Amino acid sequence: MARILYELKGKDDRRFSPYCWRSRFALAHKGLEVEYAPVRFCDKDKIAFSGQTLVPVLVDGDNTVFDSWAIARYLEQHYAEAPTLFGGAIGEAEALFVNGWADRILHPVLVKTVVTDILAHVEPEDRRYFRDSREKRFGVELETLLEDRDERAAHFRELLEPARAALAAQPFLCGDAPAYADYILAGTLQFCRLTSPYPLLEKDDIIYAWRERMLDLFDGLARRAVGAHD
Amino acid sequence: MARILYELKGKDDRRFSPYCWRSRFALAHKGLEVEYAPVRFCDKDKIAFSGQTLVPVLVDGDNTVFDSWAIARYLEQHYAEAPTLFGGAIGEAEALFVNGWADRILHPVLVKTVVTDILAHVEPEDRRYFRDSREKRFGVELETLLEDRDERAAHFRELLEPARAALAAQPFLCGDAPAYADYILAGTLQFCRLTSPYPLLEKDDIIYAWRERMLDLFDGLARRAVGAHD
Repeated sequence: MARILYELKGKDDRRFSPYCWRSRFALAHKGLEVEYAPVRFCDKDKIAFSGQTLVPVLVDGDNTVFDSWAIARYLEQHYAEAPTLFGGAIGEAEALFVNGWADRILHPVLVKTVVTDILAHVEPEDRRYFRDSREKRFGVELETLLEDRDERAAHFRELLEPARAALAAQPFLCGDAPAYADYILAGTLQFCRLTSPYPLLEKDDIIYAWRERMLDLFDGLARRAVGAHD
Repeated sequence: MARILYELKGKDDRRFSPYCWRSRFALAHKGLEVEYAPVRFCDKDKIAFSGQTLVPVLVDGDNTVFDSWAIARYLEQHYAEAPTLFGGAIGEAEALFVNGWADRILHPVLVKTVVTDILAHVEPEDRRYFRDSREKRFGVELETLLEDRDERAAHFRELLEPARAALAAQPFLCGDAPAYADYILAGTLQFCRLTSPYPLLEKDDIIYAWRERMLDLFDGLARRAVGAHD
């Protein structure tokens, strides 16, 4: 049976979408083999069959699922006998809270911290689209965002406090072993790690040590990704 | 068997500690009857037996437990047959993340929004201690904090975004029914509701509707608390 994860691809085959990384981790957690199919920013015809324009899209036999959260729920329900991503209804509901934290609180700050570096990792034919769409979104030239990068990164580190509180008591956000809430944050940090040499995390941060553990999972799935810094 | 929750008490018997409310909700969730024992700010001799100076302290027969998170874990383990607060190990680990979010992200902003109003609800003999300790903590006269209260409250509402993301898909943070993560945030908001007439939440906010549901729980346990605004 064909199982394909359509995911964003930059230059030199970098796969830096935080949302696609959530799905990569979730598939690995379930022990499912998958073929990764790259999609460029301006190559959305490849996923037109799914009825929309955003990755990740998972094709699993006869099923097509899009949106990283929907993919995680699909995998949990469809592969219920494999290791759990959520640990039950309350765990799933709380993971949606963590998902919202990563998407609405962390990502808006992080993307402005690294977006200027991303430009160099976008395929030449996508670069004009990328710059125009992002400059329209942020209301400034991308290079301008470098000016207060240190302050923005410091603010980002402060925003990680809830994760620090959890990791002070347990090795993973989900307790003794990683599960979907860990993959959410790991995906967000992988987005930076694969696009920017900027030292976002301080090495004595408990989050840094946790990220090392996340990079080791699944035979170094995230650690050995193309373009990784640090 | 004696079961007593020692909790903070202000003037006119207001019980506004967010941490004590978490324990109140958790006890009610487990269906446990409890006697509330009030402790004033400067009346810590009452809990000296527990070996420390902060409420909540739960005495449950021969067991003494302090710290709201430890109390929740104790109740979950000791009353395992009663309705679950966490829904398993992953749910408990994620609830600790929500706990850290409320304590480290929300509370520092919220306390500066309402602390000036709290002064009026502190027993006269505690007021000097309260003002001095809080002014030392914040580095300004309490009245100064009123000057940028609107901006601070707007910032607080932005910080609630992760909860909004979750509540857009489900009636409670813990899914179809409330559990401990809901009690964490409800406790934080109750702290404001019992001390300040300031309209912190906008009425068309999804969080406001969720709070109404929380206020209805357990025969209106939180709604009918002394001193409630709104």
